[in-house]
Amino acid sequence: MKKALFATPQDAESAFYEAITSADLEGMMAIWADDDDIYCVHPNGARIAGVERVRESWRQIFASGQTLRFQLREQQYVQGMIMSVHSVYEFITVAGESRPRGPVIATNVYLRTERGWRMVAHHASPVPASASVAADPEPRRATASKTLH
Amino acid sequence: MKKALFATPQDAESAFYEAITSADLEGMMAIWADDDDIYCVHPNGARIAGVERVRESWRQIFASGQTLRFQLREQQYVQGMIMSVHSVYEFITVAGESRPRGPVIATNVYLRTERGWRMVAHHASPVPASASVAADPEPRRATASKTLH
Repeated sequence: MKKALFATPQDAESAFYEAITSADLEGMMAIWADDDDIYCVHPNGARIAGVERVRESWRQIFASGQTLRFQLREQQYVQGMIMSVHSVYEFITVAGESRPRGPVIATNVYLRTERGWRMVAHHASPVPASASVAADPEPRRATASKTLH
Repeated sequence: MKKALFATPQDAESAFYEAITSADLEGMMAIWADDDDIYCVHPNGARIAGVERVRESWRQIFASGQTLRFQLREQQYVQGMIMSVHSVYEFITVAGESRPRGPVIATNVYLRTERGWRMVAHHASPVPASASVAADPEPRRATASKTLH
């Protein structure tokens, strides 16, 4: 399988959400590090660890046939030379549904490997209406980035 | 305020859970990096960013007067020289309640600063009974650690 090489964690992140949108399982798995220490927490889910189980979880999600659209907001990065942690709000729309779903807050962790930047962790959890994004009363600038030296 | 200096991310993590258990707000804030890019997602919560708002969220939790006990299980680490990402299951018992609460899965991110290892992100989400830890059918070894070189 030809795997993409991502020059930055942002490239890997873009490809991650594109893979979900297009229900592209091979594209999805090309983003993850090939390592049994990777893990994924889907919204309302337990931890799923290791390449095979992470792959199976996405296979099941994609098999549902739902077409999802993502709008990402309020990205915030803690970016190092080797590892980068992104926090993003996902506003998800399901094709055929008139209203967007409530937002999901995700922590995405990327690692610089010899094959470029890869995802090593994705932790997503729904934000209940009672704890809406408005709980963060002072909107942060669209993208806050911290680069470590 | 005298701040502790944590030699390892594990030291910072131990102090983090001790601070919750003892409702020690100053101890809690001594674990966090002194940076407006820190963020905290409490279970069922939105993202809370920046030192002042993170402090206020813990102040409110501690003001509730509940005494919490934590048992951590299935820690899994992606550990680098500068940043370390820990995934842990928190089994929480509230003093006065006969049964433990359902588990919470947490992603904790630590950064090596000039003042030792500090927390920069805590993302916690409840694991519903329907997606219990048993969803991870092959128990991983108690502590899986990956050290980057």
